[in-house]
Amino acid sequence: MKAPNIAIIGATGAVGRVFLDIITERGFPTSSIRLCASERSWGKTLSVANKTITVEEATPQLFHEMDIVFIAAGSEISSILAPVAVEQVAFVIDKSSAFRMDPDVPLVVPEVNSSDLSEHKGIVASPNCSTAPLVMVIKPLNDIVAITRVITDTYQSVSGAGSLAMKELLDQSENITSKRPINAIEFPHQIAFNIIPHIEGFLENGFTNEEMKMVEESRKILHLPDLSITATCVRVPVLIGHSEAVHIEFTEAISPGLIREILAAAPGIQVRDDPNANVYPMPIDAADKDEILAGRIRQDPANPKQISMWLSCDNLRKGAALNAIQIAEEMLRRNIPLKHRRI
Amino acid sequence: MKAPNIAIIGATGAVGRVFLDIITERGFPTSSIRLCASERSWGKTLSVANKTITVEEATPQLFHEMDIVFIAAGSEISSILAPVAVEQVAFVIDKSSAFRMDPDVPLVVPEVNSSDLSEHKGIVASPNCSTAPLVMVIKPLNDIVAITRVITDTYQSVSGAGSLAMKELLDQSENITSKRPINAIEFPHQIAFNIIPHIEGFLENGFTNEEMKMVEESRKILHLPDLSITATCVRVPVLIGHSEAVHIEFTEAISPGLIREILAAAPGIQVRDDPNANVYPMPIDAADKDEILAGRIRQDPANPKQISMWLSCDNLRKGAALNAIQIAEEMLRRNIPLKHRRI
Repeated sequence: MKAPNIAIIGATGAVGRVFLDIITERGFPTSSIRLCASERSWGKTLSVANKTITVEEATPQLFHEMDIVFIAAGSEISSILAPVAVEQVAFVIDKSSAFRMDPDVPLVVPEVNSSDLSEHKGIVASPNCSTAPLVMVIKPLNDIVAITRVITDTYQSVSGAGSLAMKELLDQSENITSKRPINAIEFPHQIAFNIIPHIEGFLENGFTNEEMKMVEESRKILHLPDLSITATCVRVPVLIGHSEAVHIEFTEAISPGLIREILAAAPGIQVRDDPNANVYPMPIDAADKDEILAGRIRQDPANPKQISMWLSCDNLRKGAALNAIQIAEEMLRRNIPLKHRRI
Repeated sequence: MKAPNIAIIGATGAVGRVFLDIITERGFPTSSIRLCASERSWGKTLSVANKTITVEEATPQLFHEMDIVFIAAGSEISSILAPVAVEQVAFVIDKSSAFRMDPDVPLVVPEVNSSDLSEHKGIVASPNCSTAPLVMVIKPLNDIVAITRVITDTYQSVSGAGSLAMKELLDQSENITSKRPINAIEFPHQIAFNIIPHIEGFLENGFTNEEMKMVEESRKILHLPDLSITATCVRVPVLIGHSEAVHIEFTEAISPGLIREILAAAPGIQVRDDPNANVYPMPIDAADKDEILAGRIRQDPANPKQISMWLSCDNLRKGAALNAIQIAEEMLRRNIPLKHRRI
């Protein structure tokens, strides 16, 4: 099979830039690469796989010439462009939330449910940046001892909100340390030296979209539709790297040692758990790494069925661009046809 | 009764300074105020209740002349000085962890268990800065519907580690935004733009001291020795204000509306829960406030017995100095004798 023609939509954004890095690093096979973004970036050039490529408009003709289209430009753009790409018989890997819960769209973390890929009808979705590390940990553990309940609270970096949000955190930090006034545009409140328990919009039930995404996407990816899972999603003044405090109750007691063994053997997870040497996952160490980091694994002294742990992960890599590229790699590796009947 | 002679040990520290502010603000009744700190601060002057007071050494003679001694200088200093003060028949209110779990020492949050004060034998302890807001929320709820399980993850500001830690966060932030190298002395890792899941030392069971304090202190204060409670305590790059994501399971379903009513009526709690107007607790809003802030109150759609919420509180006030002063106020209000038989 000839290497695919690929396009990246949203190539100039925070996730888009990481797409280019990862394609270059991994030597992802391509016959051609096209890069698209919004109008203000047309004509700019970006570097990928030792080539300099000019950013252009995403048109039906462009999609027609592509085998794989990665879309990382937000759910509104995905809702508009993904059907156009599918119409032009390009295979879409979508980073946004637009299609994740669509029963016709596999939602895939390759380490967890790559077998769902063959069910695609032209679109495969990549999960929320906080969902990916959580399901990667739950899956191998639940395979050994069944999980009855998951409670997680997140510590999510500003890069999850895009590159302007990263600039806003740096600008605010600089202004506050220099005792100058600050502007808050990307976030509803000051984010420097603050914590905002609010990511995405609020739903009727008081949860945010982000929180319910973690719940619903995890259930779908894990094929555990009744999994008891609750989350609080929180923005913290960190540039790159999401962290999660995770509390898991199992049907029977399981030792931290066994958990460590299972996670160390699981794909894409690096166990960092030597607290007496001050070794545990942190966002500054997770940034720029493909693996998610797991540590602080411990058993509730009063309830041996309950395990707590701590995860950190590069939200732009495994939480976004890397997972999407791994979906493409898995499609090619398994020879799953990219062509599909129209949806 | 004559207004008490009081001493503040650790007056120059992050918590000590807030002691002075709160004594001034509240017009706490005193016949005299003495301020003590470590040798390098002797002779410095500090302002409290419109008086300028010189910092001096904490001596047995000084304790002998005092009615109430507040100690906020860390558990090592407390271990040494509290018995000396008690020997000199001064009543000690101790901010440190040194005596909290001593069965002879009441551990008190006045809004929760002020009736324990009369059991004192010369020392009353004030709880950990993360415990105080948690028990203030649990108590009034558990009075209405019994609580079966609490899981909490914290977002703790650097001021909990003292004023040098606050300076370190500001210095690191300034250096990073200016692309200069940083020093990490007060924390085991960089704290600016990072998250450290490590507060205080690690125990054999993998939990930190800070986490087990939250567990054990909550059980003692609430008189619920078997309460199922688990915590992950995490340091975040915030100057003042601890936040907590709290997940509570009750024996029966309880509506968010009723929770809001109960908490709004509870002493020392301000409900801030209008998410559609972007109103929820945040550390920058909790700083300099006596009340703890509670919001994001919601019910798990899949389990009506489970409620999640979000708290923020000024860790130097209700988490430390304010609670200690409220203990003194409550002792005076209830006419509980400060004198005691020697322990």
